[in-house]
Amino acid sequence: MVGALPVSPLAPARFPDLPVIDGVRFATAEAGVRYRGRPDLMLAVLDPGTAIAGVFTRSATRAAPVLDCQAKIGGPCEEGAAIVVNSGNANAFTGRFGQEAVDAITAATARAAGVPQRRVFTSSTGVIGEVLPHERITARLDDMVAALDPGGVAAAARAIMTTDTFPKGAAAQVEIAGRKVRIAGIAKGSGMIAPDMATMLVYLFTDAAHDQTALQALLSGLTERSFNCITVDGDTSTSDSLLLCATGASGVDATGEAAFAEALHGVMLDLAHQVVRDGEGATKFVEVRVTGAASDRDAKTHAFSIANSPLVKTAIAGEDPNWGRVVMAIGKSGAAADRDRLRIRFGDILVAENGWVSPGYREEDAARYMKRQELVIAVDLGLGQGAATVWTCDLTHGYIEINADYRS
Amino acid sequence: MVGALPVSPLAPARFPDLPVIDGVRFATAEAGVRYRGRPDLMLAVLDPGTAIAGVFTRSATRAAPVLDCQAKIGGPCEEGAAIVVNSGNANAFTGRFGQEAVDAITAATARAAGVPQRRVFTSSTGVIGEVLPHERITARLDDMVAALDPGGVAAAARAIMTTDTFPKGAAAQVEIAGRKVRIAGIAKGSGMIAPDMATMLVYLFTDAAHDQTALQALLSGLTERSFNCITVDGDTSTSDSLLLCATGASGVDATGEAAFAEALHGVMLDLAHQVVRDGEGATKFVEVRVTGAASDRDAKTHAFSIANSPLVKTAIAGEDPNWGRVVMAIGKSGAAADRDRLRIRFGDILVAENGWVSPGYREEDAARYMKRQELVIAVDLGLGQGAATVWTCDLTHGYIEINADYRS
Repeated sequence: MVGALPVSPLAPARFPDLPVIDGVRFATAEAGVRYRGRPDLMLAVLDPGTAIAGVFTRSATRAAPVLDCQAKIGGPCEEGAAIVVNSGNANAFTGRFGQEAVDAITAATARAAGVPQRRVFTSSTGVIGEVLPHERITARLDDMVAALDPGGVAAAARAIMTTDTFPKGAAAQVEIAGRKVRIAGIAKGSGMIAPDMATMLVYLFTDAAHDQTALQALLSGLTERSFNCITVDGDTSTSDSLLLCATGASGVDATGEAAFAEALHGVMLDLAHQVVRDGEGATKFVEVRVTGAASDRDAKTHAFSIANSPLVKTAIAGEDPNWGRVVMAIGKSGAAADRDRLRIRFGDILVAENGWVSPGYREEDAARYMKRQELVIAVDLGLGQGAATVWTCDLTHGYIEINADYRS
Repeated sequence: MVGALPVSPLAPARFPDLPVIDGVRFATAEAGVRYRGRPDLMLAVLDPGTAIAGVFTRSATRAAPVLDCQAKIGGPCEEGAAIVVNSGNANAFTGRFGQEAVDAITAATARAAGVPQRRVFTSSTGVIGEVLPHERITARLDDMVAALDPGGVAAAARAIMTTDTFPKGAAAQVEIAGRKVRIAGIAKGSGMIAPDMATMLVYLFTDAAHDQTALQALLSGLTERSFNCITVDGDTSTSDSLLLCATGASGVDATGEAAFAEALHGVMLDLAHQVVRDGEGATKFVEVRVTGAASDRDAKTHAFSIANSPLVKTAIAGEDPNWGRVVMAIGKSGAAADRDRLRIRFGDILVAENGWVSPGYREEDAARYMKRQELVIAVDLGLGQGAATVWTCDLTHGYIEINADYRS
């Protein structure tokens, strides 16, 4: 069912070359959890001493693997660790069977990989409400451990896909005190994507050493400025998880290093944008910039009101410079706005100001702009210094097709 | 562009027979504001002594006619009054031209109908951001006054349509102290429909006499339980207005009469449901009932989270009993929920309980149920006594078609 979807027109030309991160090895397998004839299981094993931070969905109905990860995150990091991820079944809303499956998988992984069970993190993504056939996963673990490969990250990115039309990866390299540190990340996600949480599945690896408590704080802060700034459909998943693993294999301590934080943010933003670019049915990549708001919080409220509006998103799909719908979305958001102080731009084109269409606005210019694949909608509220930028895609027939048929 | 849309499959079989409400007369005209070859202007003239209450959109970017109505509502009601409504142009976000157009129309109507300008209420619905050619409206007023007809309410319902595929009317009759009182109402709206406001254009008329202050309180309360319980797309219009006019022509004072309030609520709910039934692209009429919430407010939050979820709405369009998406929508709403106490029903079919699919659930039963045109999704949160019911429709290709092309 996944293979049938054409690759998003917004996909990057190719999967990037991700660097090997010393201290982490990968394996994938065809476990047949739901999909046939494709890898649907990934294992990452991390060397002893790896600091692991995580952020997770805030959904009140979150899945068993998420609850298990949340209970384990932040523990001591002297021993080795492992991450097991399956696609095709979310192990969400599966009652007591949910935790049973997690226990079975983490226990088997601990045995196979020689790491403590409290350092085994799992994620599951796919259908909600069906019991996870965990024996299909545990049956593959010994073979996977035997096949662990430091260069296996690209295969891992493919194994965790569900309705994704392309695998998502990003990397960065940064020098700290003259020595190189590497960051590599993979992500999956294209529907049920919404703000205010870690959004989808993301795994980040670095060979930097890092204090674990500080790593968690850094990760939480950067998530607010990356994954929590994207939306495809405003629907928040029950399974979203992000894990950041710092193996320390480079011998370089990146704790408190601004260059490391900046590089990490770049990788996170790149992956977040790739998720939007793979938004179900997406044909346009849209940046919504709000400035001049009474507060940053107000700015984000306005930005998401625009980015989640079905009327704005369908207008973009129709290449219609329908700025009236942007005015509507600002008006309904509940955050402070003054109709007569708004300035709205499509790209560099000033569309509206002083409570009306701008005198220099020409519809044909805006219509030409809307034909682009990448669009910027900029709103200056003229009230204060609050600012936020979020990213979204258009709402098309493709979204309806995918979601009126696919059982997620 | 409007005539091209097929009538909604959820439309009532026919427009109801609305009773004549003594004390109000109607006229319609083809003013050519935007549409050609169809009536796009309605005038209602109310006898002296009519009490008028109103509720309006809370959008921060609301249109000039809304602001004008809000300034006028609640004034003395000894003299006559008039309502003028045009379709095709919303006179919203039109800068200073907005109020100028309202002033021109209300002044001309006051002259033509012999009522004070402060008792002339206008609404405009259609495209945002284009100056209203008010001279096309004022040019028709003398002829319209000459043609005023107590039986013209059905024609009025047609004149105010935009993307509506059918005119909307409802009526009730109630006995108070052995004497009859009549209520008739009309509405328009099918897109940009969302909770937390008066939602679209609605005009209600009754020949009951009613204290005006009490009428306003009654209307506001009933709006919370009718129009503020529907959603098509979660997008809130800049023009939504509801006016309730009590002419008193029956000589029966309905102030404080429970039977009157109940009948009025029935008319309002009927019209609200008709708006959902004309939801852009709708093929299913969906009632979402939430009970057992920690509070009524929480219940409404959960109900709207379900009713506005694109994933729930596309599943309904696909006739997929995808209760996992209902779990997701509850989880993301932000209101209190306990995964393991949820009980979810599709119609009479118990789908989920105790944190998992119900033991007696059979997918084929639910799949058969989902083929119906009218659906009930019921959620018992098992936490408290809070309850709310809201109504919505599915999200289909029709919505994309209408909104990727139509400039609203």
